[in-house]
Amino acid sequence: MKIIHTADWHLGKILNGQSFLEDQRYILNQFINAMKEEQPDVIVIAGDLYDTSYPNKETVKLLEETTRTLNLTLNIPLIIISGNHDGRTRLNYGASWFEHTHLYIRTNLDRIAEPITINGVNFYMLPYATLGEIQHFYPEEKLKFYDQAIQCCLKHMTAQLDSNQTNILVGHLTVSGGIKSDSERELSIGTVEEIPENVMKQFDSVLLGHLHHPFSIQSDFVYYSGSLLQYSFSETKQAKGYRKLTVDEEGYIESIFIPLKPLRELEVVDATYEEAIQENAQVKNKENYIHFNLTQLSHVNDPMMNLKQIYPNVLALSNQSQTFEVHETQNAIKQMTDKEIIEDFYESMTQKSLSKVQEQKINDLLNRMNRGEEA
Amino acid sequence: MKIIHTADWHLGKILNGQSFLEDQRYILNQFINAMKEEQPDVIVIAGDLYDTSYPNKETVKLLEETTRTLNLTLNIPLIIISGNHDGRTRLNYGASWFEHTHLYIRTNLDRIAEPITINGVNFYMLPYATLGEIQHFYPEEKLKFYDQAIQCCLKHMTAQLDSNQTNILVGHLTVSGGIKSDSERELSIGTVEEIPENVMKQFDSVLLGHLHHPFSIQSDFVYYSGSLLQYSFSETKQAKGYRKLTVDEEGYIESIFIPLKPLRELEVVDATYEEAIQENAQVKNKENYIHFNLTQLSHVNDPMMNLKQIYPNVLALSNQSQTFEVHETQNAIKQMTDKEIIEDFYESMTQKSLSKVQEQKINDLLNRMNRGEEA
Repeated sequence: MKIIHTADWHLGKILNGQSFLEDQRYILNQFINAMKEEQPDVIVIAGDLYDTSYPNKETVKLLEETTRTLNLTLNIPLIIISGNHDGRTRLNYGASWFEHTHLYIRTNLDRIAEPITINGVNFYMLPYATLGEIQHFYPEEKLKFYDQAIQCCLKHMTAQLDSNQTNILVGHLTVSGGIKSDSERELSIGTVEEIPENVMKQFDSVLLGHLHHPFSIQSDFVYYSGSLLQYSFSETKQAKGYRKLTVDEEGYIESIFIPLKPLRELEVVDATYEEAIQENAQVKNKENYIHFNLTQLSHVNDPMMNLKQIYPNVLALSNQSQTFEVHETQNAIKQMTDKEIIEDFYESMTQKSLSKVQEQKINDLLNRMNRGEEA
Repeated sequence: MKIIHTADWHLGKILNGQSFLEDQRYILNQFINAMKEEQPDVIVIAGDLYDTSYPNKETVKLLEETTRTLNLTLNIPLIIISGNHDGRTRLNYGASWFEHTHLYIRTNLDRIAEPITINGVNFYMLPYATLGEIQHFYPEEKLKFYDQAIQCCLKHMTAQLDSNQTNILVGHLTVSGGIKSDSERELSIGTVEEIPENVMKQFDSVLLGHLHHPFSIQSDFVYYSGSLLQYSFSETKQAKGYRKLTVDEEGYIESIFIPLKPLRELEVVDATYEEAIQENAQVKNKENYIHFNLTQLSHVNDPMMNLKQIYPNVLALSNQSQTFEVHETQNAIKQMTDKEIIEDFYESMTQKSLSKVQEQKINDLLNRMNRGEEA
């Protein structure tokens, strides 16, 4: 039994004004070619297929064409859940028809206790849900915290689980201790939304989306596939690809990571402006999406325009001469409480202090958030 | 063989700020109940399922739920084409999967020569297309006019047609002489986009969408089903429902219109303000969407608010005391050329005359439009 595990395609992603659609089309083509070779029994896509609830036409077409090729042309069953970036109505559209050809999409909690069974392996699907949504779904459970809510879902999911069979969980969430990147939107602002891996130990294997690093955690049964592409400059050192799981006759599961070669990578380049413009800076590929950290820049008129002549896909430019001050501010912020940060920001924007009423509201809000309630 | 013919659902329609979604859900429920009774062999929906290319979530859900019930629960084959209001990518999403359960959607010209055959009857599907799109699709044909372009499509469609079989055309267009309503968006501004019925005579029957009146034309083989609901105050006298076609053993086809009862109708009420407010005006149903044409109104503060207390769904109010002047203007406009209307409008908006350059541009534009070119 061969299972392919992928997630976080983020189709429609735009970084610094640059659409990644061409890169996504290219890498999905690589992925499709790999699937022709792999001939897996099932492909699991663990959420965040889209980057936004309102993907444009081209983006919708790219997803439809890709799933059509995988499911209808290559006849591979697909298991898909929604992530925090996906619009549910959008992603779920047509799902009742898709099941006829073994394309299974789940975007809500209705059927989490009904696994999809493929070649004797049960796939339990837990789409992304907020604390508020889980509270609404299980009002009798008096849920207060995110980890408690996920455990409640797992309890309902596994009520009928037969541990003599092979059971795999598909989810979109953060496991405690996972390595984060800049491009994973926080699941919720101000609350901790992580769960320890041991609450999922009833499953033989857990295939996750959300964290973008394919080696986000060290575990012998919980895996992140990582994202399809590098989606932020904090991910430049990360390989991207998919995971291949094999389930042997005894139900023993092994997961290995297979990298794919993208059209362009993200690259951070430290140099002087002269080195960059004279092509003496260390640049892996001039076509890459580059973030330049440059010094000796202050005398240059429109450096970005000049850089684009040589590096057509430069996406960002930082003036390293100013770095010291920024770092100082960042360090200062680390010492401040949430409320102090808000006060400081308000004052710098308005040149006024917070009123009593404003201060009280902010206190209330922060307290409620600390208690894990919806803001 | 029983065929149900419907069209112009316009899901998501908003008239004078009023969403019709509740009315649409209600009437589609009536339609589904009727289909349970009818048990047809196929349902044809001849375009304009949506009112807009950007339907909201609730609207998308309503269409998905309706087609799911008809196709997957009641197991009725569906034949759907796009109209001028539909977004193609939106409507076509999932179509490759839907065909597995006999839900056929066509939104472009690629497969117009491939009919869908149900119980020995061939359904040829011609989705809505502009002159420009047809020109682009058949560049070698040097098409200049809309009717010529449609005839070109029909020529390609019928190249392999076997006239010994029963062949039905499904389209979304205007047949010359058809009765129009205010809610059918013009297919194109400034050009005549109509075709004579005789160019479709190779077909045994033609099931059309676009015109909203179920008796838009008198023909023994071309039919409009009419719209699902009254969508403008020019349609208040029109019954709405669906058409039922029966094809007998000899291939003889009969089409009858079956009305459905809506939640609310559109109603135009002529009265004095006092009659309306004293409930002495002739009103069929106070819950209807009403357009009041009232006299003796000039002394009243916020008449709309007062009317809404009694007629909660009043949608429009005209002050009939001003009617004389409006009619005069309308009559004057009828005497004017297109160019004079534009000049008059420009002067009344800007208190200036058109410049030479502006005048030349308008002349060019009007000439090109008169020659049937794209503006």
